[in-house]
Amino acid sequence: MKKTLNIAVIGQGSMGRAHSNAYHQVNHFFETPYAPRLKVICGRNREGLEKTAATWGWEEVSTDWRSVVERKDIDVIDVASPNALHAAMSIAAAEAGKIVLCEKPLAISTDEAVGMVDAARGVRNMVWFNYRRVPAIAFTRRLIEEGRIGQVFHYRATYLQEWGNDPTRPPSWKLEKAGAGSGVLGDLLSHLIDTALYLNGPISEVSGMMRTFAPSREIDDATLLLARFANGSVGSFEATRYAVGCKNRNAFEIHGSKGMVRFDLEDLNRLDFLDATEPRNEQGARRLLVTGPDQPYAGNFWKPGHIVGYEHTFIAALGDFLEALHSGAPFHPDFADGLAVQRVLEAVEKSARANAGFVPVTPSPA
Amino acid sequence: MKKTLNIAVIGQGSMGRAHSNAYHQVNHFFETPYAPRLKVICGRNREGLEKTAATWGWEEVSTDWRSVVERKDIDVIDVASPNALHAAMSIAAAEAGKIVLCEKPLAISTDEAVGMVDAARGVRNMVWFNYRRVPAIAFTRRLIEEGRIGQVFHYRATYLQEWGNDPTRPPSWKLEKAGAGSGVLGDLLSHLIDTALYLNGPISEVSGMMRTFAPSREIDDATLLLARFANGSVGSFEATRYAVGCKNRNAFEIHGSKGMVRFDLEDLNRLDFLDATEPRNEQGARRLLVTGPDQPYAGNFWKPGHIVGYEHTFIAALGDFLEALHSGAPFHPDFADGLAVQRVLEAVEKSARANAGFVPVTPSPA
Amino acid sequence: MKKTLNIAVIGQGSMGRAHSNAYHQVNHFFETPYAPRLKVICGRNREGLEKTAATWGWEEVSTDWRSVVERKDIDVIDVASPNALHAAMSIAAAEAGKIVLCEKPLAISTDEAVGMVDAARGVRNMVWFNYRRVPAIAFTRRLIEEGRIGQVFHYRATYLQEWGNDPTRPPSWKLEKAGAGSGVLGDLLSHLIDTALYLNGPISEVSGMMRTFAPSREIDDATLLLARFANGSVGSFEATRYAVGCKNRNAFEIHGSKGMVRFDLEDLNRLDFLDATEPRNEQGARRLLVTGPDQPYAGNFWKPGHIVGYEHTFIAALGDFLEALHSGAPFHPDFADGLAVQRVLEAVEKSARANAGFVPVTPSPA
Amino acid sequence: MKKTLNIAVIGQGSMGRAHSNAYHQVNHFFETPYAPRLKVICGRNREGLEKTAATWGWEEVSTDWRSVVERKDIDVIDVASPNALHAAMSIAAAEAGKIVLCEKPLAISTDEAVGMVDAARGVRNMVWFNYRRVPAIAFTRRLIEEGRIGQVFHYRATYLQEWGNDPTRPPSWKLEKAGAGSGVLGDLLSHLIDTALYLNGPISEVSGMMRTFAPSREIDDATLLLARFANGSVGSFEATRYAVGCKNRNAFEIHGSKGMVRFDLEDLNRLDFLDATEPRNEQGARRLLVTGPDQPYAGNFWKPGHIVGYEHTFIAALGDFLEALHSGAPFHPDFADGLAVQRVLEAVEKSARANAGFVPVTPSPA
Repeated sequence: MKKTLNIAVIGQGSMGRAHSNAYHQVNHFFETPYAPRLKVICGRNREGLEKTAATWGWEEVSTDWRSVVERKDIDVIDVASPNALHAAMSIAAAEAGKIVLCEKPLAISTDEAVGMVDAARGVRNMVWFNYRRVPAIAFTRRLIEEGRIGQVFHYRATYLQEWGNDPTRPPSWKLEKAGAGSGVLGDLLSHLIDTALYLNGPISEVSGMMRTFAPSREIDDATLLLARFANGSVGSFEATRYAVGCKNRNAFEIHGSKGMVRFDLEDLNRLDFLDATEPRNEQGARRLLVTGPDQPYAGNFWKPGHIVGYEHTFIAALGDFLEALHSGAPFHPDFADGLAVQRVLEAVEKSARANAGFVPVTPSPA
Repeated sequence: MKKTLNIAVIGQGSMGRAHSNAYHQVNHFFETPYAPRLKVICGRNREGLEKTAATWGWEEVSTDWRSVVERKDIDVIDVASPNALHAAMSIAAAEAGKIVLCEKPLAISTDEAVGMVDAARGVRNMVWFNYRRVPAIAFTRRLIEEGRIGQVFHYRATYLQEWGNDPTRPPSWKLEKAGAGSGVLGDLLSHLIDTALYLNGPISEVSGMMRTFAPSREIDDATLLLARFANGSVGSFEATRYAVGCKNRNAFEIHGSKGMVRFDLEDLNRLDFLDATEPRNEQGARRLLVTGPDQPYAGNFWKPGHIVGYEHTFIAALGDFLEALHSGAPFHPDFADGLAVQRVLEAVEKSARANAGFVPVTPSPA
Repeated sequence: MKKTLNIAVIGQGSMGRAHSNAYHQVNHFFETPYAPRLKVICGRNREGLEKTAATWGWEEVSTDWRSVVERKDIDVIDVASPNALHAAMSIAAAEAGKIVLCEKPLAISTDEAVGMVDAARGVRNMVWFNYRRVPAIAFTRRLIEEGRIGQVFHYRATYLQEWGNDPTRPPSWKLEKAGAGSGVLGDLLSHLIDTALYLNGPISEVSGMMRTFAPSREIDDATLLLARFANGSVGSFEATRYAVGCKNRNAFEIHGSKGMVRFDLEDLNRLDFLDATEPRNEQGARRLLVTGPDQPYAGNFWKPGHIVGYEHTFIAALGDFLEALHSGAPFHPDFADGLAVQRVLEAVEKSARANAGFVPVTPSPA
Repeated sequence: MKKTLNIAVIGQGSMGRAHSNAYHQVNHFFETPYAPRLKVICGRNREGLEKTAATWGWEEVSTDWRSVVERKDIDVIDVASPNALHAAMSIAAAEAGKIVLCEKPLAISTDEAVGMVDAARGVRNMVWFNYRRVPAIAFTRRLIEEGRIGQVFHYRATYLQEWGNDPTRPPSWKLEKAGAGSGVLGDLLSHLIDTALYLNGPISEVSGMMRTFAPSREIDDATLLLARFANGSVGSFEATRYAVGCKNRNAFEIHGSKGMVRFDLEDLNRLDFLDATEPRNEQGARRLLVTGPDQPYAGNFWKPGHIVGYEHTFIAALGDFLEALHSGAPFHPDFADGLAVQRVLEAVEKSARANAGFVPVTPSPA
């Protein structure tokens, strides 16, 4: 018999939708001991909330997140609101003893993130860096851990979107400093940095550059940086909403002494892997279709060759979290991981604003 | 208030699973007026049934499909059993006045399929040629209807799998004549033919070839054919389980006087489209990421650039079917479409067995 | 000191140009013991001949190929004329004791080709199936010989061009039965068949289909066939000039019990190779850049990673031929190889014209 | 009647070979009024020189470049020596009134390059940034000039090689500071910068990073930089010899308000072009095969669909230079263009050495 987990999600946008789906689907693909119950969905627009609740089966709606956080019958607070609200909501939830799941970026400043980590010390928590659960990315991590890439020399990542260039686009909190805190720094670069820390370890120093293309915009439309990783490798990162021609190219490439991997979220079931220990005349990037067998999440979703999509990364993140919740094992990415990303973003911004060249990233305690 | 539809699925294999998922998900992505209720799952293995029922929320299990078909409280019979059972189950269900959904291939012979069409004349029905609902395939259809491909010259399709070559593979009804009726003919080629009929219209004549590679196997491991379409174009089809290196390459390519399209199920969110009316020096196959905007199902799933997977084709098929069920509009592919595929398969087999060269395909009445 | 070889080429079209280039370049990339001297270029258009001779350094021009064949000072007759003239010219040259190089297809009928083989028994000869010398194709042959593909199941090849659909195209002997003998059968399919025989051995039976799309045209715009190879594998071939969107897609794909290879002439430095003996979770088509090291012709052209083009296939064919000429070793493809291709084409045509299904290919004596 | 140009090349390595080929081939593909005569090849290794001279038809060899520069019968001095010798040789040649062609990078310092530009003011000159003549790159320039890309937002370029990681590699002046001046900065990054200046105009500021991976090496194994272009766009550049898995990936990608282009030298006949003014649902990167018609150099080489290789970029550079020599028209890239590249490299090095963040690039006078 599964244990019921009463869920409240705060946020009714695309993340509210993606999380709702994950709660519905997690037990179809993962054997967790929990039964998530979609108790309350919170937001500011009651009409929208009611529609979303009807579609996704939320039992109640609320426009008062603080009262929801106080409710005794809620086990999990899932923060899927605009970035600027993450800290207050997560801290309140943690202080109320809830399990806290928070969308990325964890916060809009390092100070906020530190506060969140402190507040959440006593509760299970997670930050929705869902792309760690792309099967191909989890498989990359395994290849690296098994030494198949060897000593890493280069890590190169881009997150390229194009909608910044679209004048017909409706307004969004994502383009407002008040709601988002930053532009692509928090929205896109945070994903790149989390994946990089996950795959290639800590970043020691960064040298950044931020750019706003739209005339009256306060936030960064593009942020680029060069990086030095603690393992001696060199990094290059670029996040932008002005990469016309690219809908959602979250891509990385890693070159090590023994091999190469290459990934692109627009074709997320694929991983290019080159084994540089093969004879020279047989070396080429292998186009792996990471749908099993013997690959991460192969047993969870469909048969080999039958691809998964964007939503499955949320389902898998939740599935893994619930398993860790049950076993008591550590779960990553948690708030501390979210803070580690924040420290890199802060250093990037500092370097860029002051034209300071490489500046150190404050290390996270182990 | 949605109208409840009580569902019984017969089949507990991978199709039972894919359909179960579709019933759960359809109202999350489509606004249908129906609430599917997962009433009974039928199959031969009670232990397995109970596990599947627990995972997917089927209220009851049954090992007696005939009694289920007779139940008054069942609205929909969904046949997801081995091919050889499709006819008997679908006919019984239709005769009991049920809505009937049947997995592909519709039958293991044309005669069976004719009987199914006859029996189902009075009930709403559908055959699960789910790939018509791949957004990129639906978009191809739209391009063709809009004249963007022009007069078609060539239609080329392959369905390439590799597992026939895997000696470690456990036994399966798919490899037995008794259960499957045929090998790749019914399993893979049927998909190719349905897509071809959908996109390029009737096939007039076929010249086929069938091949069994495994020593003691009764069924075809590979079937190839050349075809003449009614519209004057030339077709080439190949289905095999011995295409080592290919997990699930269901691919087609169409060349017309005004353009080209190319598709591969392993990267199902992509469509290559070439517009031959562009200046010659700017013509190249465009790599479209068919995730919206202004593309089929763009409003149903996720934001542009956020890809969908295999399961979404079942969800979309069901979504469209339920909408047609409500409105009374025709739905395709229905049993008549399944029969049309069967007639082509029959002609292929006839040509191949007798080395008869091109033989006519019996036309389906309009 | 290199031995001078006096060359006469008969043909002033694109093949005359490609061969002229090969004579100039062969000693830059191959260490042959011969110095080709560009003695005479023959054709019907004196003005054009003089221009070509000036560009490419032919010492003389002639509009009378018969007199050229008789000249004592000519060592090599290189037949690059329209197909219908290959036999007469090659036979005359062979009878005059010349070394004979003939463009593909060897002839416009099997009878002609038999006569050419007979006539050329006493002289060194070659047919310009230049694509055997694409480094990636030669590497494919090596992989097959080393057993890396294992038992072959499927061989699939297409030669797709689009210019048949271009009404602005000037007239050409290639579109006339009188000059070309056939359409894509001799022009494109002959290439596919030669490569197939080279890589996968003899073809036992074929079932063909020919199609003319242009209203008043006598020749085949598209020819397709299914094949049975002597080694038990199944073949599929398609050649067309109506594949809108494809400039020169001469491509093949081979699936065997141990691996797969895939090639496309439009990206001729690449070879996709999948090793099916790798662990299942690491299998993927490797994108090899076949420019060395340890690959065919790697020492002849440029450094690894620096690609070659279309013309290098002619240079390498000539280089290998001259080496064989010197050593006395057999050279392939020779006229007998050209005849073997012709026998397949004849069977295809016979099957297609009579709708005879599979018909046997007359075997060539070993 | 063509005018003879007596050529002396200084350099017997791979560039000496590529240039030799260009002199042989230029009049086969370009109608120039000049007949290059391969008069002298200079170098330090007499044995090697004699072999190269025999292969490529150089009339004489010399180990004393200074005496060659003084010869009255030499029209063109082609400097293909190690980088550190470019300045002395080019200046001597210019002062002797010769036409001077110099390999890239123009020099090993800006000061040297300034001296070369000054010395060469009175003579025709060229720097062998041969990649400007890749047909696909020349076509990119045309697209940009025609406004098809619109306002550029992002320019991203990488030159990725792997041989730095190969311990079996024989010693080379390219790895010695004395011979090369720098590592990838001069060898690879110079190519990227020249292409960027050609396509996207002047660079105002750069922020650089240099890295040596090999323990005892003096030169940079990898150099990365961020850039601000004068047109307001943002640049990112990476050159390395430690990109394991990449043989010769000289690639760029440009995103503008109206379109995108993408190029990779390993597949140099291709250009990806996206037209962002198309309807949103039809936008996708078009895979253009830049072999004509109506594309740069389409009339010079082979028929559309028949690809060219690495060497053709040298032939086309020489062809264009000789045409400009005849007509008196300006030719680019000349020494001034080489200097402009050098100024960027200098700023990169300055920024990197001092961790100075963005530093200005000294503008070249118009």
